[in-house]
Amino acid sequence: MMTPRYTPLIDSLPASVPFVGPETQERATGRVFDARLGANESVFGPSPKAIAAMEAAARDTWMYGDPENHDLRHALAARHATRPENIVVGEGVDGLLGYLVRLVTQQGTPVVTSLGTYPTFNFHVAGYGGRLETVPYTGDATDPEALLAKTRETGAPLVYLANPDNPMAGLHAPGVITDMIANLPEGALLCLDEAYIDLAPEGSAPDIDADDPRVIRFRTFSKAHGLAGARVGYALCAPGLASAFNKVRNHFGMCRISQAGALAALGDEAWLTRVRGEVAAARSRIAAIGAANGLESLPSATNFVTLDCGRDGDFARALVRELGARGIFVRMPFVAPQDRCIRISAGTPADLDLVEARLPEALRALR
Amino acid sequence: MMTPRYTPLIDSLPASVPFVGPETQERATGRVFDARLGANESVFGPSPKAIAAMEAAARDTWMYGDPENHDLRHALAARHATRPENIVVGEGVDGLLGYLVRLVTQQGTPVVTSLGTYPTFNFHVAGYGGRLETVPYTGDATDPEALLAKTRETGAPLVYLANPDNPMAGLHAPGVITDMIANLPEGALLCLDEAYIDLAPEGSAPDIDADDPRVIRFRTFSKAHGLAGARVGYALCAPGLASAFNKVRNHFGMCRISQAGALAALGDEAWLTRVRGEVAAARSRIAAIGAANGLESLPSATNFVTLDCGRDGDFARALVRELGARGIFVRMPFVAPQDRCIRISAGTPADLDLVEARLPEALRALR
Repeated sequence: MMTPRYTPLIDSLPASVPFVGPETQERATGRVFDARLGANESVFGPSPKAIAAMEAAARDTWMYGDPENHDLRHALAARHATRPENIVVGEGVDGLLGYLVRLVTQQGTPVVTSLGTYPTFNFHVAGYGGRLETVPYTGDATDPEALLAKTRETGAPLVYLANPDNPMAGLHAPGVITDMIANLPEGALLCLDEAYIDLAPEGSAPDIDADDPRVIRFRTFSKAHGLAGARVGYALCAPGLASAFNKVRNHFGMCRISQAGALAALGDEAWLTRVRGEVAAARSRIAAIGAANGLESLPSATNFVTLDCGRDGDFARALVRELGARGIFVRMPFVAPQDRCIRISAGTPADLDLVEARLPEALRALR
Repeated sequence: MMTPRYTPLIDSLPASVPFVGPETQERATGRVFDARLGANESVFGPSPKAIAAMEAAARDTWMYGDPENHDLRHALAARHATRPENIVVGEGVDGLLGYLVRLVTQQGTPVVTSLGTYPTFNFHVAGYGGRLETVPYTGDATDPEALLAKTRETGAPLVYLANPDNPMAGLHAPGVITDMIANLPEGALLCLDEAYIDLAPEGSAPDIDADDPRVIRFRTFSKAHGLAGARVGYALCAPGLASAFNKVRNHFGMCRISQAGALAALGDEAWLTRVRGEVAAARSRIAAIGAANGLESLPSATNFVTLDCGRDGDFARALVRELGARGIFVRMPFVAPQDRCIRISAGTPADLDLVEARLPEALRALR
């Protein structure tokens, strides 16, 4: 008999990893990237107030963090004009997605998503034995009608939509999302991943009652707030669902420093405004660099720009490699036909100077 | 139809919480504890080198942490004279215990532990549908023979033992543990929680081959290293088991600041030596304070002392409340007859001055 005796589900899972980290690539090449523009991190950094709060919290880290995330949940409730009972704080959206999937998924449960969207959601569905039911993008956008139809057809209890989308950067209007919620089959829950909504134009977020049991929204401090390495995400949802997370979550899983950093970041609206401006400028410049090299940019409501390379996936993959060999870390969609594109995160002017200089070299190497 | 549609397992789970945090109690009373001695945190704090490393990392926290935990795993491998392939780093031992339970537990899987030992393990077993099979303490110690017998009887794939024990603070000799491993039924895995081993006498850790597939050991930066709020635990196990964690773990779940803090802490052996000295002094003083108040102390190989109140659980619970009302946060075992005891974490001299002054008052209030 083998030891350990894994469950049949675990035995059936591949040792897959949703993303390879840039550090892994750096160790393989022995060279640190000159521009880190592949993980949609915020190169503009966290608010100086958040940095100060984290520095101050460093010496208090002998204490566990508050398992109720009380102060952060109350501040978030005030920010979203709702109640703390509507808010779940967790170890990044990735961690929270795992808990959510676990709440509704057992062996064979159908779960609906778009083919080629955020893969960590799929990692969790597979990890809990769910059966992924996917619908393709329409054009380069997720397709709420098709997602609804698949949800109806399969009887899935959960359907995932990222709005704005990752990896294609597009945005559905608020009415499209509220229509989707209105047309959900009975018993289905919409998992609405709004990780990038802080970077979309003002007014992009649909107005959703936090008590609506048909939808759970995810937000994060990893993108606009520049705290990816602190692992702080949160969900807005009905109190019954929020309290169900308490059945499974790692109650003492939040870092004390991260709680302090997120709370301070939330209080610095001016920093967020500044980051939005920097991101908008970077998006324009990435689009211009793309255009100068014959690569069309897709509209972006995020902190990255998806560039259409106009060829197949092999070409785009080769371009990602050539850029990597030139010290520029970028990523790309996984699935055809979206994998004809590459995805470049908003960089500092210095980062984008490098992209401007090296993208033509990388393209030349391929032609 | 209700939305969301939880799985039957989730519906069956109570909304239980392994521990109520001290902050929750502070909010309820409107008063901050004067001495925080209930969660076995290290009041002596992390190494100054770890604090400096975390302060320095604060401004880099716009980057995700390395999902492979490469540098920390390599440093830990060197420290334990083994290979990085034998090491899994995760979000505290709590997080890692959850992953381990998930690897081997499905609905109805028997899992063996001692009745009254670390409850977060039980939380995970219940959370994955496992059937807890418990054996009582013998005297006030966990009973390896009884655990083995129950493992054999139930065919459990997993048996848990904390050594040193929490909440009773005792230690089994290395030979007892290696005998237990030698006598495990085929196919059973020993989950050996060594969270407190850094605080036990030199030579207390059994010499276990990290490649042995029958055992997985858990260590933490939360106790002796004073980094509870940073959430860094690790496991030592055979490479096959270590890589199985990759099937389910939150790959980007580690905080970048925490990785930096743990790495620096690991390099400051002098601080660990100093903390061990402070903890030993605190243990002696807690024992003396107990004795002066007619409460016998149990031998401790941890950073806390378990005091036998000599009455029943109701008395001990009342004493915990009376101490809390006097600004002193302590906890106690959950299960009879061990719940006749209270558990006081090693405090600073100032903390223990307060315990010395207020324990007699709390006892007087009960008599």
